[in-house]
Amino acid sequence: MTTTVPGPTLGVVGGGQLGRMLAEAAAPLGVEVIVLDPTPDCPAAPVARDQIVGDFDDPEAIGRLADRTDALTYEIELADPDHLAAASAEADVPVHPTPETLRTIQDKWLEKEMLAEAGIPVPAYRRVDSVADLEAAVSEFGGVMLKAREGGYDGRGNLPVHSPDEAEAALEEAVGTAEDPSALAETFVDFEREVSVIGVQGDGEVRTFPVGENVHEEEILRETVVPARTSDDVKERAQSVARDVLDALDGRGVFGIELFETAEGDILVNEIAPRPHNSGHWSIEGAVTSQFEQHARAVLGWPLGSTRQRAPTVSANVLGTVDEPRAAELGGVEAVLEREAAHLHWYGKDEVRPLRKMGHVTATDEDRDGDLTALLEATRELRDSLTFQ
Amino acid sequence: MTTTVPGPTLGVVGGGQLGRMLAEAAAPLGVEVIVLDPTPDCPAAPVARDQIVGDFDDPEAIGRLADRTDALTYEIELADPDHLAAASAEADVPVHPTPETLRTIQDKWLEKEMLAEAGIPVPAYRRVDSVADLEAAVSEFGGVMLKAREGGYDGRGNLPVHSPDEAEAALEEAVGTAEDPSALAETFVDFEREVSVIGVQGDGEVRTFPVGENVHEEEILRETVVPARTSDDVKERAQSVARDVLDALDGRGVFGIELFETAEGDILVNEIAPRPHNSGHWSIEGAVTSQFEQHARAVLGWPLGSTRQRAPTVSANVLGTVDEPRAAELGGVEAVLEREAAHLHWYGKDEVRPLRKMGHVTATDEDRDGDLTALLEATRELRDSLTFQ
Repeated sequence: MTTTVPGPTLGVVGGGQLGRMLAEAAAPLGVEVIVLDPTPDCPAAPVARDQIVGDFDDPEAIGRLADRTDALTYEIELADPDHLAAASAEADVPVHPTPETLRTIQDKWLEKEMLAEAGIPVPAYRRVDSVADLEAAVSEFGGVMLKAREGGYDGRGNLPVHSPDEAEAALEEAVGTAEDPSALAETFVDFEREVSVIGVQGDGEVRTFPVGENVHEEEILRETVVPARTSDDVKERAQSVARDVLDALDGRGVFGIELFETAEGDILVNEIAPRPHNSGHWSIEGAVTSQFEQHARAVLGWPLGSTRQRAPTVSANVLGTVDEPRAAELGGVEAVLEREAAHLHWYGKDEVRPLRKMGHVTATDEDRDGDLTALLEATRELRDSLTFQ
Repeated sequence: MTTTVPGPTLGVVGGGQLGRMLAEAAAPLGVEVIVLDPTPDCPAAPVARDQIVGDFDDPEAIGRLADRTDALTYEIELADPDHLAAASAEADVPVHPTPETLRTIQDKWLEKEMLAEAGIPVPAYRRVDSVADLEAAVSEFGGVMLKAREGGYDGRGNLPVHSPDEAEAALEEAVGTAEDPSALAETFVDFEREVSVIGVQGDGEVRTFPVGENVHEEEILRETVVPARTSDDVKERAQSVARDVLDALDGRGVFGIELFETAEGDILVNEIAPRPHNSGHWSIEGAVTSQFEQHARAVLGWPLGSTRQRAPTVSANVLGTVDEPRAAELGGVEAVLEREAAHLHWYGKDEVRPLRKMGHVTATDEDRDGDLTALLEATRELRDSLTFQ
């Protein structure tokens, strides 16, 4: 294997913070990144070789991206699998993970079916194609989480339904229609904690990062603690389920595998992201190889790096704590810069909006004293000291 | 202190590997980089916001750089201090380290004088303005290292002189003229090893990284081992001398302070670089904050980060092992990618030339078993397995 100059170029559909961190991680390897994003000067633009301004589902723009790159990938589920497949064939460049995998994961029902068929434990679910379907599921499970089959993100498109009477209104709210809805009803999981495993499918090899524990609020990830504060048994089970998930998926790349740890210590798969995942940001400082470098390596078919953890780590999202959109201006940054072994990641988004992911703070425990709860509290406090002016 | 979007922009004179790694390190902080470099598509270009193509001493280009940035710095000693000072004043943006410091360091004689006046130990030296001066110095010291006062780099402009008879020819070779030479003669130092300290001068604070041990061949750095394999006493002395050096210098930023450890365990200052230094590349993976992030923080007047070491670390330069310049194509990259806790840094230079710095490999000892010699040997072997096709 040889590296030339210019090195291989990755074409990435999406140029948000994931594309930005991918470009940051690819550069030391001599790998260049071109992103496709509809927003001019998107977050990835300042560190990428170039940005093609275009919609995620614009076949002409995806074709231009493919023409300029050695491999295609995406950092957003809104990427269009059909256009990716066509551009890949036309320009004769691979796309990873495969469009088929993206297509499956975009549809929460297909995703669940694929997992269930592979014998992977998931919460009980029912397909919902009508109000009657939802009423039946609510009765059967005694309440469900209604999910739109497509287009959900960060909890959008999800709604708890406690009684059959609420079915019609719930479909209208979550799916946009009760006429011919395309949805899924899942039993409520009595979970002890939410954990995740970042997995990497390489060229004939598979690696997983240590299990992270995720703290959500309003269905948006707030903090990730690594390693998860749970038993070794549970962590092993989570790793094993994650490897089964990777086996069931097609195509190379990083996958964020979100899991529930139930009150009984069982592991159920919640959702899969076919890309680097927010709960893997800790790996930039906390692991030998970051999830972003792994994604670049995997998509290019290069050997994967070590997923070993370097120190106990907590990452905390900096979300838009504002009521109305406005120009982004973050105050209190000194506190993060001054804090030993804390790292600021600012995504360069020019507008702050309510709960928008604007950056994150990672803190490592270089002394390895092992008090993860204290590290979580301290990191949270540090993050909370940042304020939008 | 607040961070806005776009974040502050650093204007960097020079866009080689140091500018590239500076841009890589600045991005997570939301700091953008614009470089000035005469080579179109220089190594920093793919990851920088922009490149201004222009000579390091082109006042008009430096002025354009200043107009687009919030602070000026440089990654190459060939930057012109007068033009930097003028552009800084004209555009009302700071430049760090100060042009005065750059001016002093550019002239090896002024540098030595500054250090000697500050009471910092340096090898005995004599100013050489004529053949007679050099003859006298050779007689006095029983042989000297002749150094051109300006323009030397990686051993260029340096020549050992063992007998007064060689004086005229040596001046012609090293300085270009024996008529009116501008040079310096230094006594040979009987050193045990060469070490260095990367120091950071911030806004009212100073930090130093752990002492590194440098292996040179043909006066070009080959490997750096951190911590240096020497006594704690010597390391403390090196730290103390480095802090004195930082005290004697003006302006914020990272400084590479090269030192000799003598056979008696004394520390003498060899040379100072007013910028991130090759012997500090280990800090990207080996320290909590890299020298490049520190440089960005320091130049902007932001709080400095922790210089704590995360694991024993060796960095090894990938030099152009070719006889003639040719298109750069590096083979054997898998070995580095596959090796646990090894990291490849490829600078993206399109032409490999004899002994040109093309990249580096860093390996950390995550198990901390402390066998630095074994780590050095293994890293060297790994680096040597890379070949230019």
